[in-house]
Amino acid sequence: MSTPVPAPRAYRRLSVEERRSQLLSASLRLFAHRAPDDVSLDDVAEAAGVSRPLVYRYFPGGKPQLYESALRSSAEVLERCFTEPRSGPPTERLARVLDRYLVFVDENDTGFSALLRGGSVVETSRTNAIVDGVRRAAAEQILVHLGAQQPGPRLRMVVRTWIAAVEAASLIWLDEGKQPAPDELRDWLVDHLIALLTASAATDGETATAVRSLVALERPEGPVHRLVARVLPLLSDVSPAPTE
Amino acid sequence: MSTPVPAPRAYRRLSVEERRSQLLSASLRLFAHRAPDDVSLDDVAEAAGVSRPLVYRYFPGGKPQLYESALRSSAEVLERCFTEPRSGPPTERLARVLDRYLVFVDENDTGFSALLRGGSVVETSRTNAIVDGVRRAAAEQILVHLGAQQPGPRLRMVVRTWIAAVEAASLIWLDEGKQPAPDELRDWLVDHLIALLTASAATDGETATAVRSLVALERPEGPVHRLVARVLPLLSDVSPAPTE
Repeated sequence: MSTPVPAPRAYRRLSVEERRSQLLSASLRLFAHRAPDDVSLDDVAEAAGVSRPLVYRYFPGGKPQLYESALRSSAEVLERCFTEPRSGPPTERLARVLDRYLVFVDENDTGFSALLRGGSVVETSRTNAIVDGVRRAAAEQILVHLGAQQPGPRLRMVVRTWIAAVEAASLIWLDEGKQPAPDELRDWLVDHLIALLTASAATDGETATAVRSLVALERPEGPVHRLVARVLPLLSDVSPAPTE
Repeated sequence: MSTPVPAPRAYRRLSVEERRSQLLSASLRLFAHRAPDDVSLDDVAEAAGVSRPLVYRYFPGGKPQLYESALRSSAEVLERCFTEPRSGPPTERLARVLDRYLVFVDENDTGFSALLRGGSVVETSRTNAIVDGVRRAAAEQILVHLGAQQPGPRLRMVVRTWIAAVEAASLIWLDEGKQPAPDELRDWLVDHLIALLTASAATDGETATAVRSLVALERPEGPVHRLVARVLPLLSDVSPAPTE
């Protein structure tokens, strides 16, 4: 039995673009599961199997630049999650978006929560602007599905506060060890938006019009009808006040 | 007619405590209407009519220490806004808290929005902890009024996401030049919580119990009955799905 000769290690110089994207991937993996202050450039170099000076050659701004690039790349991933064709029952479109969003939150847990909690040294007006851009993209998509080209202030307020509620719910979900199950959280968030739109439709004509045309597209066994069926008995305890 | 002799200028050395509180008041006024990065120690010294070295003698940590002290003092003011006796219609208690809260937001506009938007150099894990303390105090007060001593995860999630929605609504309100009028925003935030509690009561027993006992304390012409009266016609378009 002859001693096996070790195969020569396949060693290939990466192109500038390949190297850059390799370093970015390594950073993304690190920033996903650690707070940015707990990631060092040495960690990135080690994870990418390169030297620290090489990291600096590609990212002369050091950790802040790497963090910002990683954040920008995550923001693009997240914004792609928000796109849904404008067909089918609206709550099913929303549920699919929320499912993809919750997978993202799950896969980026520590980084996601550190970012939204703030207080890190890598946080700047530029990183804040990236996060705000994601919120804006989410709001725009919801308004598209609501059929609101020129949404009035009330409808914009509804959508933007619901997005803030989703963010808060995601952070609580991470704090509570990812409980409840993602589909339970998603169903509650869908109910939350239905409730908020319905309450706002009661005092805002534009919201009422938007809600009415969306409800027409819902399945009779879908979340809207299910929520109404469950809520009506609760409301029957309340004798409605005469409307003015 | 004799020339009046100018009275000697009343000059009194302030005690250490008085001087400290004078500097803090000057900082509070400055941080209320400017982003922290736009306030310098010279501004504080000038506003308090003292020298810069004197500011440093009282706040050797410089601007970060002044900012943290001012924030701590504002947090106490805000937490006091949240306290309401547990009597009378619950939505009226909530409306009074929101009125006081919106006055606070109005009086601290730029500082409030800079703080919550983050990204300032004076922001630290300690300032974040102060803000989180305010959120926790708000949640605790709401849970007290909901009669929930040991609230389950769903009810806590409802309360905490609504608080996040209130924060977001306040920031939007400031962005939109303090439109709509504060009482309109307050009414919408009350409706928002009613809607959210009702939707959550549909699938969570604890929330249902809490809501039922609160509704019993409402006035027949109050916001709960008014919202139900407005929402029922909208719901009549939706034939409820059979409950399982």
